Amino acid sequence: MAHESVDITEKLSLFSDHWSPKVVARLNDYEIKVVKVKGEFVWHTHDDTDELFIVVAGDLTIQLRDGDVRLSPGQLFVVPRGVEHCPIADGEVHALLIEPTGSLTLATQVAHRPPASTTHRRDSRRCPTFRMPILQC
Amino acid sequence: MAHESVDITEKLSLFSDHWSPKVVARLNDYEIKVVKVKGEFVWHTHDDTDELFIVVAGDLTIQLRDGDVRLSPGQLFVVPRGVEHCPIADGEVHALLIEPTGSLTLATQVAHRPPASTTHRRDSRRCPTFRMPILQC
Repeated sequence: MAHESVDITEKLSLFSDHWSPKVVARLNDYEIKVVKVKGEFVWHTHDDTDELFIVVAGDLTIQLRDGDVRLSPGQLFVVPRGVEHCPIADGEVHALLIEPTGSLTLATQVAHRPPASTTHRRDSRRCPTFRMPILQC
Repeated sequence: MAHESVDITEKLSLFSDHWSPKVVARLNDYEIKVVKVKGEFVWHTHDDTDELFIVVAGDLTIQLRDGDVRLSPGQLFVVPRGVEHCPIADGEVHALLIEPTGSLTLATQVAHRPPASTTHRRDSRRCPTFRMPILQC
């Protein structure tokens, strides 16, 4: 069996769409994904899992109801389960995401995105968790 | 509640010992650890979990019985459960490790290290998993 490393930057070079994580490896029942994001996402909550962000390039802000967390390359943050959050990036950000297999991803959340708003949504969306197919990057 | 990012390089600057991972964040029932390694470890197997390595600095080789995996900064590899492996680094390597809370860590494996050998061990050690205290970095 051949074993190969995963080059994060190389995987990120293979796509250009935003808010659409690609699975690059699996760790037990978790998926390691690369993602490019730009602009503001939607306020949402994962009721049954934490979510790990590791920023590779660019500056990402994860808005929380009680303050923002700013992430530069080489910094990470775990959004605790049940905590409403909304990522936002002025420029393009490249990041790693690690979360349980089947967690609702950013891409799917965009597909179900509520009407656009230029201000923070005060009514949170409760994002269910279900299994979804993701092409291996 | 204050939310703070984790700066990986800053955490790595807080210690100098090798093969002694420090927990810097938690993701559900997993721990995100930073570690410095240098030299050769011991051949061992995790029977009940995969193990994720993400290299931050330096060049790490993960020896496997059927070939080596070489990791440079920005590269990752998941050692599948049940696969015997032995990390080795000529120079110092800084890395992130992600594995389930309570997994037997590198530090403990060193504490139970078998007699030194300059060649690969053909008799594998089967590392049990148990909970161990790790100081937050």
